[in-house]
Amino acid sequence: MSGFGFDLLGQDGAARTGAVRTLRGHIRTPAFMPVGTAATVKALLPENVRATGAEILLGNTYHLMLRPGAERIARLGGLHKFMDWPRPILTDSGGFQVMSLSKLRKITEEGVRFNSHIDGAEYFLSPERAMEIQGLLGSDIQMVLDECPAFGASESDIEKSLAMSMRWAKRSKDAVGGRDGHACFGIVQGGVFPHLRQRSVAELTEIGFDGYAVGGLAVGEGQVAMFETLDATTPHMPKDRPRYLMGVGKPDDIVGAVLRGIDMFDCVLPTRSGRNGQAFTWNGTVNLRNARHAEDTGPLDPECRCRACASFSRAYLHHVVKANEIIASTLLTWHNLAFYQDLMAGLRAAIARGGVTAFAAGFLARYRAGENEATTENGG
Amino acid sequence: MSGFGFDLLGQDGAARTGAVRTLRGHIRTPAFMPVGTAATVKALLPENVRATGAEILLGNTYHLMLRPGAERIARLGGLHKFMDWPRPILTDSGGFQVMSLSKLRKITEEGVRFNSHIDGAEYFLSPERAMEIQGLLGSDIQMVLDECPAFGASESDIEKSLAMSMRWAKRSKDAVGGRDGHACFGIVQGGVFPHLRQRSVAELTEIGFDGYAVGGLAVGEGQVAMFETLDATTPHMPKDRPRYLMGVGKPDDIVGAVLRGIDMFDCVLPTRSGRNGQAFTWNGTVNLRNARHAEDTGPLDPECRCRACASFSRAYLHHVVKANEIIASTLLTWHNLAFYQDLMAGLRAAIARGGVTAFAAGFLARYRAGENEATTENGG
Repeated sequence: MSGFGFDLLGQDGAARTGAVRTLRGHIRTPAFMPVGTAATVKALLPENVRATGAEILLGNTYHLMLRPGAERIARLGGLHKFMDWPRPILTDSGGFQVMSLSKLRKITEEGVRFNSHIDGAEYFLSPERAMEIQGLLGSDIQMVLDECPAFGASESDIEKSLAMSMRWAKRSKDAVGGRDGHACFGIVQGGVFPHLRQRSVAELTEIGFDGYAVGGLAVGEGQVAMFETLDATTPHMPKDRPRYLMGVGKPDDIVGAVLRGIDMFDCVLPTRSGRNGQAFTWNGTVNLRNARHAEDTGPLDPECRCRACASFSRAYLHHVVKANEIIASTLLTWHNLAFYQDLMAGLRAAIARGGVTAFAAGFLARYRAGENEATTENGG
Repeated sequence: MSGFGFDLLGQDGAARTGAVRTLRGHIRTPAFMPVGTAATVKALLPENVRATGAEILLGNTYHLMLRPGAERIARLGGLHKFMDWPRPILTDSGGFQVMSLSKLRKITEEGVRFNSHIDGAEYFLSPERAMEIQGLLGSDIQMVLDECPAFGASESDIEKSLAMSMRWAKRSKDAVGGRDGHACFGIVQGGVFPHLRQRSVAELTEIGFDGYAVGGLAVGEGQVAMFETLDATTPHMPKDRPRYLMGVGKPDDIVGAVLRGIDMFDCVLPTRSGRNGQAFTWNGTVNLRNARHAEDTGPLDPECRCRACASFSRAYLHHVVKANEIIASTLLTWHNLAFYQDLMAGLRAAIARGGVTAFAAGFLARYRAGENEATTENGG
C-alpha cells in the first residue's frame, strides 16, 4: 500500500526499533499512542500532546460513531482537521468498547447490534461498517473488527470466537480495499493459548495486513500470563510489519513487551491517572493527593522537562489536585504523557545501541524500588 | 509609594486611558483582570492567560487563606512563584467571599468570624489580618477589608455599614504600612445613595490610598442604577489614581463604566461562562450547546485570533461542550478572556484617539443586535 510502510532499523534480541511511515508523517518505534477518545486527548490541547513527543494518536471509533457521528466528521473534513491534529491517527474498530461500554444487544456472524451508552439509540457494527466508519474519520491506520472474549472464557469458546474474528478480519480487509496510503492492521486473538495465538497469526498473515496487533490481553490475565502469551506469539509474527499490543499498559508492561518484540502501544493509563492525581516518574508512581507533598518545593520529577516539572512545585500540584482544579488534570496528564514518551525514546535509543537489556533492568529496578517506597509511604 | 504609580495618558470625556505601574510590570488601562481564584485561572495554563493579553490577575484572599493557606504560600515563595505568574496580581480582601460563601459566624467592629466552606474550620478576618494575608501572598495591589451590605438594605443600615467600612479602611491602611512597591486601594461603599458614595470617597481620600475601588455594585441593582451610582461617584474620585469597579461585569457594563471614568475591572463571567459552553463575541453571546452549531465549519468569532477561533470550528466546540470534555472549558475560557482583552484594547485605542463615544455606540449596537438574534434562535 503506497505511502504506508515500516522500516526495521535496529534489533537487540527480540526488541526492535524502526519507523512506521504514513502520509501524515513518520512514527518512531517503539511508539506510545495517547488515547484521544472523543476527538480530544482529555485535558490537553493538541499542541500540548505534541510537546510531550507524541507522533500518533489513537481515536475511538465507538465514541466517535455515537457522537458526533462518522458521517458528520467526514462532512466537517475528517477527524484530523476536526480536532486540529495533523499527524497520524490510528483508529480502533469500536468492537472492544461496544462490548465493554454499550448495552449490547446481539452478536451474530453478521456483526454486533447495540445501544448507545449516551442516549440508548440502536446501532449496528459489522466488519464492513467498522471499516467504513474509520474511512469516514480519515484514519491513517484502521483496525479490523474483532470479538474480544472475556478473560476466563473456556478454550473452546475462545476457539469459536477466534474463528469468527478471523472471518471478520477477512471481511474487514476485503471492505477496506486499497485506500491509498491508509493502512489496515489485523488483530491476533486466541486468549492465553499458544496454539490458538499461532493459528491466528497464520490466518491473518495469509490474508495479509499492513501491520499486526495483539488483542485480548491486559484483560485480567496478569503480567506473567501476558508475557508468556507474547513469548508464544511475537516470534511467529511477520518481521517486516509493525506489531501493536492493544491497550497496554503500565510502564513495566510496556518495557517487557518491547523486550518481546512489540513496536506500538496505546493505553488510557497516563491520561486517566493524570486526571486522578496520579503521576508516573522514573522513581515509580506518585500520588499528588498525599499530604507529604503539601510543602514540597521540588518538582514532580527532577529528570523530566515537561510543562508541569519545568515550573511548578509538588506543593502546587498537591494544592490544585486537592482543589479539583482543571489545571491539575492538564499538568499531570501532560507530565504522564511526557514520561511515557521519554520512556519510549529511552527504549528506542537503548535498542539502537544494543543495550536494551541493561536499560530495561535499570529502569525496572529503580521504578519498582520507588513503587515499594511509595506504597509504604502512601499506606501510612 | 515608590515602584507603584498611575500615569493618566489620555482622556475622552470622562473616559480615561493610562498605565498602572508596578514592580512586576505595567498594566494598560482600562484593564480587565481575569480571576485566578485558587491560584489558577480555571481551565488555563498561565501562558494561555498571558496569550489573551492579560497583564494582571486577581487572586481571592478568602480561597487562598483557606487552601492552601497564606503562611504556606509565603513559605513556598509567594503566590506569583506558586502559580507561575510573574506579572502583577491584585488580591481582594476576602470580605466579599466570606459574606457570600462561608458559614458566617459573626461580624463585629473587630472583624469577621466565619467557618470555611471547605472543612468547617473557624477563621477570623480583621482589617489587620486581611492586609497581613495579602502581604504573605505577595500581592502587588492589596484591597482594604470592607463590609459589602446586601442589595436592598435600608439607607440607615448602609450608612452604618459604610461607617464601619471606613474605620476598617483606616485600620487596613495603618496595618499595611509602606511595603515598598506594593499598593493599597480603598473601597468606596454607600449603596445606590449618592451622598453616601460621596462621603465614602471623601473619607477614603482623607486617609489616602494608591487607588480607589467602587464596591458594592453589580449585586442586583441593575445596570441603570449601577451607571447612575457611578455618575454620582467617579467625578468625585481623585483623578491621579486608578479607579477600579469590583466584580463587573458583562461587556456592556464595562463599556458603560469606562465611559464613566473607570480604569480597572475584574469578573468571573468570561471564565465561568466559558466552562458553561457560553461565549462572548462581537456579535453578542453564543451558546455552543445549541444544535445549530453542530455542522458549522466556521470559527466561533471570525474577528478573533484566539486559540479557539484560530483552528477549531463551531462544530468542534459544540461537540466538546456536549461531550463535557475539558478542552471545551479551555478553549471557551481562552476565547472569552481574549474577547474581553480585545474589548479593553479597543476601548484604550478609542480613548487615545478621542473616539470612545463612537466606539462604544458601535460596539453596543452590534453586540445587542447579536444578543437579540441569539435570544430568538436559542428560544427555538
